[in-house]
Amino acid sequence: MTTRTGNVFIISAASGTGKTTLVSRLVKNHADIRVSVSHTTRAPRENEQHGKHYYFVSQEKFMDLVGQGAFLEHAEVFGNYYGTSVMGVEELTRQGFDVILEIDVQGAAQIRETLPHAIGIFILPPSLAILEERLRKRETDSAEVIERRLAEAKSEIEQASAFDYVVVNDDLIATEMNLLHIIRSQLFRQPLQRATIEKVLQNS
Amino acid sequence: MTTRTGNVFIISAASGTGKTTLVSRLVKNHADIRVSVSHTTRAPRENEQHGKHYYFVSQEKFMDLVGQGAFLEHAEVFGNYYGTSVMGVEELTRQGFDVILEIDVQGAAQIRETLPHAIGIFILPPSLAILEERLRKRETDSAEVIERRLAEAKSEIEQASAFDYVVVNDDLIATEMNLLHIIRSQLFRQPLQRATIEKVLQNS
Repeated sequence: MTTRTGNVFIISAASGTGKTTLVSRLVKNHADIRVSVSHTTRAPRENEQHGKHYYFVSQEKFMDLVGQGAFLEHAEVFGNYYGTSVMGVEELTRQGFDVILEIDVQGAAQIRETLPHAIGIFILPPSLAILEERLRKRETDSAEVIERRLAEAKSEIEQASAFDYVVVNDDLIATEMNLLHIIRSQLFRQPLQRATIEKVLQNS
Repeated sequence: MTTRTGNVFIISAASGTGKTTLVSRLVKNHADIRVSVSHTTRAPRENEQHGKHYYFVSQEKFMDLVGQGAFLEHAEVFGNYYGTSVMGVEELTRQGFDVILEIDVQGAAQIRETLPHAIGIFILPPSLAILEERLRKRETDSAEVIERRLAEAKSEIEQASAFDYVVVNDDLIATEMNLLHIIRSQLFRQPLQRATIEKVLQNS
């Protein structure tokens, strides 16, 4: 494969849908797929590393970056700020990596305005009942927070039709493969292949 | 997976590009992918079976079918007629199969008018020089016919940009996988997933 410019994928889902696990697997199993690393003001969870999972910054530092126009999108979610830097994404696609932006529905809408060629993928839970069960099993949130997340989930799922692709996560391995199908298929979309057609015609 | 209506894929290429081998592999390896069986007036090649590779019919019978409007498309290629029946394709997609129409560029243009939702995939050889080598190795055609096919190939490749996806066949296994990525990814295109989104929202 000759050097290509990578594609940008916006992957969104209601929390508890398995989005983070799926994206981690894709990145681990495919060297040419990367995630953009977001900035956040929230506290690191167990095992989360600065610079790998997130750039953990203070609210003051975050606001400085906002002022500098460093973010492709930023949003407040449950009292914490999250942002995706423009520079990080562009550098990776220029190197030929497909870049996944794993962001909430609110952030996704903002990014699609800035990056109209980004491909949106929404991951659905098999049902709201199963989503509730998954959130309870996680045991990081209080009952009250779970209720709030479920209400949020419902309104987020209602926005799934704003995405280009919609995938149900009913089986982790199958869903990972389905996401890979979507990511790989973009390489062959005709507008991106004009140069290839020309090259074949000239090489006679 | 619940019952779904299959998608229709138009796969075209200049002859000698490996289209037939690729499509055969896809159908052999994936039970839910089928080919439409075309009618033709040309003589069967070695190992070609009636009803499996083609319906081999006389020119008189073929013209009868044309008169009955039985074909989605039909075309004359190198003095022989080829046609794809509407009935055969619709019956398979209704049963949930993804259907591949393996047809020449001329026929592809006709089908896209009748089936605007069909997804067009064009397979490119790595270069015209390699295509020429492949045609010579096949040893079924005279030097004169090969020259004619190469000129045809060039003008067909110039039409590749009318297709939705363009794939270079430089490695059989990799290209089969890339075609599978394209075929599978269509299942998750948002407009086809509206019912799924509704179902998740109702199942709470």
